Amino acid sequence: MSTTQLTLAEIFSIAQDALTQAGANKENADAVANTVMRAERDGSHSHGLFRIPGYAASLQSGKVNGNADPKLHSRTAVALHCDGDLGYAPLAHQRCLESLAEAAHENGVAVLSITRTHHFAALWPETEALAERGLTAISCVSYMPSVAPFGAAKPLYGTNPLSFAWPRPDAPPLVFDMATAAMAMGDVQIAARDDRPVPLGTGLDENGEPTTAPAEIIKGMLLPFGGHKGSHIAMMIELLAGPLVGETASFASKERDNGDGGPPQGGQFILAMSPEILSGGVWQAQSKEFLKRLGALDGVRLPAERRYRNRHDKGPREINNALLDKISASSR
Amino acid sequence: MSTTQLTLAEIFSIAQDALTQAGANKENADAVANTVMRAERDGSHSHGLFRIPGYAASLQSGKVNGNADPKLHSRTAVALHCDGDLGYAPLAHQRCLESLAEAAHENGVAVLSITRTHHFAALWPETEALAERGLTAISCVSYMPSVAPFGAAKPLYGTNPLSFAWPRPDAPPLVFDMATAAMAMGDVQIAARDDRPVPLGTGLDENGEPTTAPAEIIKGMLLPFGGHKGSHIAMMIELLAGPLVGETASFASKERDNGDGGPPQGGQFILAMSPEILSGGVWQAQSKEFLKRLGALDGVRLPAERRYRNRHDKGPREINNALLDKISASSR
Repeated sequence: MSTTQLTLAEIFSIAQDALTQAGANKENADAVANTVMRAERDGSHSHGLFRIPGYAASLQSGKVNGNADPKLHSRTAVALHCDGDLGYAPLAHQRCLESLAEAAHENGVAVLSITRTHHFAALWPETEALAERGLTAISCVSYMPSVAPFGAAKPLYGTNPLSFAWPRPDAPPLVFDMATAAMAMGDVQIAARDDRPVPLGTGLDENGEPTTAPAEIIKGMLLPFGGHKGSHIAMMIELLAGPLVGETASFASKERDNGDGGPPQGGQFILAMSPEILSGGVWQAQSKEFLKRLGALDGVRLPAERRYRNRHDKGPREINNALLDKISASSR
Repeated sequence: MSTTQLTLAEIFSIAQDALTQAGANKENADAVANTVMRAERDGSHSHGLFRIPGYAASLQSGKVNGNADPKLHSRTAVALHCDGDLGYAPLAHQRCLESLAEAAHENGVAVLSITRTHHFAALWPETEALAERGLTAISCVSYMPSVAPFGAAKPLYGTNPLSFAWPRPDAPPLVFDMATAAMAMGDVQIAARDDRPVPLGTGLDENGEPTTAPAEIIKGMLLPFGGHKGSHIAMMIELLAGPLVGETASFASKERDNGDGGPPQGGQFILAMSPEILSGGVWQAQSKEFLKRLGALDGVRLPAERRYRNRHDKGPREINNALLDKISASSR
């Protein structure tokens, strides 16, 4: 596989140029390029430059508004709403997360519901940002039906990621961000591109039969992680990121979509809570001792540790040349 | 297995008598007996009379306060706290859930953190009650270390159940309530009592080796459901039901416990949200259509359906005679 070494600034520029050429204004392009650069920085390739062709396609088709002007309004002091104006999600986050954090710090808990948005990134940027402000955060989005509910052989759920972040006064936040599919579709796509099999249980082919071929799963469907229990979590996310916030579930997001290959319109649920208020000020010692014991167990790796390790590396990243060619082609 | 047919009123009385004889006052005994009766009514045997010997043991040892007087106070308009006064959780719920519902209806979201409580029941009574009031609810508790984090061979997590409830204007709430262990300890205990093997992956023996013998798992440890992803959910619950609400994680709950066989002191996290407010009033049509499609899939059973079906049966329940003997003995 031939690759090119690119600095993080170069990765940002490639993303920014591609998005601008595809029709985004500077503010929207910069917000997306920043999440793409940070994904590559942290080693999260399936959310990095790999996504640019999809981002560009939906700007070019006109499905996504490259001049989006997302607006925050407060339904109550703790129920914030952001109309994403049909743009990509990162600019909405840039404009609204600080207000969510303030509401949670003041009241103990607050929710940001985002509608009319197109989310095509990881979720940890949102939850990590809140945890860096001393809050615990939970966020989820749905997508388009690609996961069969447990027991079924027809997709209804999106890959429906869930992210949780927990503040640590003396360390970066503890964060997990995981698809509730057995594998994220981005990772299945990368396996298909690299012609690698995936574990049995990852998905079914279009006839509902188990397979290890990623290309067959892309034509067929994924399975939820963890059997019926994981399927319950995926169902919960459909409801939280869809109807609860005033948006569609995956099935309807797909029906509305124009099939341009980019992300559908959907909703996002973001919950922020203040451990300081909810615990009456006594959370820190117990949190620290619990995480110390967890981290000390043989065989345990705390979530996000690998991302933080990658982040310390300020050097260039290896980027697949075929991907760079695809990006050049996609934004023309 | 010899059994006796008992009406729900008789089940309530047996529980109430046992709790009263073990030292609970009427208000505390009635609140617990009501959750025990409702568990048997719904076919949830592992949370029914099966728990009475444990409930009685902790009243008799003095660990649990049979005269508990749980008190609600508002840290903010949406951050409610209940000091459980070292009693069993049901009386705290009886006194506080209505206020939580009011706060969520008024503001869109509210949290009830319960401390100094002993939770030994299912979680669906709390979440279902909130969803019956038109709210979506999430609740969790931790317990004592019996689950090894993914990759480890030493228990640190409790069985850490998570419950989610979603209101349906034209049907009873959609509710799931599941241990984040591969199997609830109550079910492992029932399998051990009945001498039935459990599926591989349920747990490890005390040397950290896989086994299907429930008695070996009870001496050893359970595993989380769903590998590393389920393990993340179990970790999140340790933090939400422990430090976030001002209580201990499972490891510390056990260290404080007197080993009387009943439930340890711990915390409970209850989140209530108003779909009406958070969605700007537009949640119902999408929710209904999504759940219709889910329920219509071949092979899918909506969670709680079996419980609601059992609930319709107003007749007597079959109760194990050996259990009834144990209850009589336990409360003397």
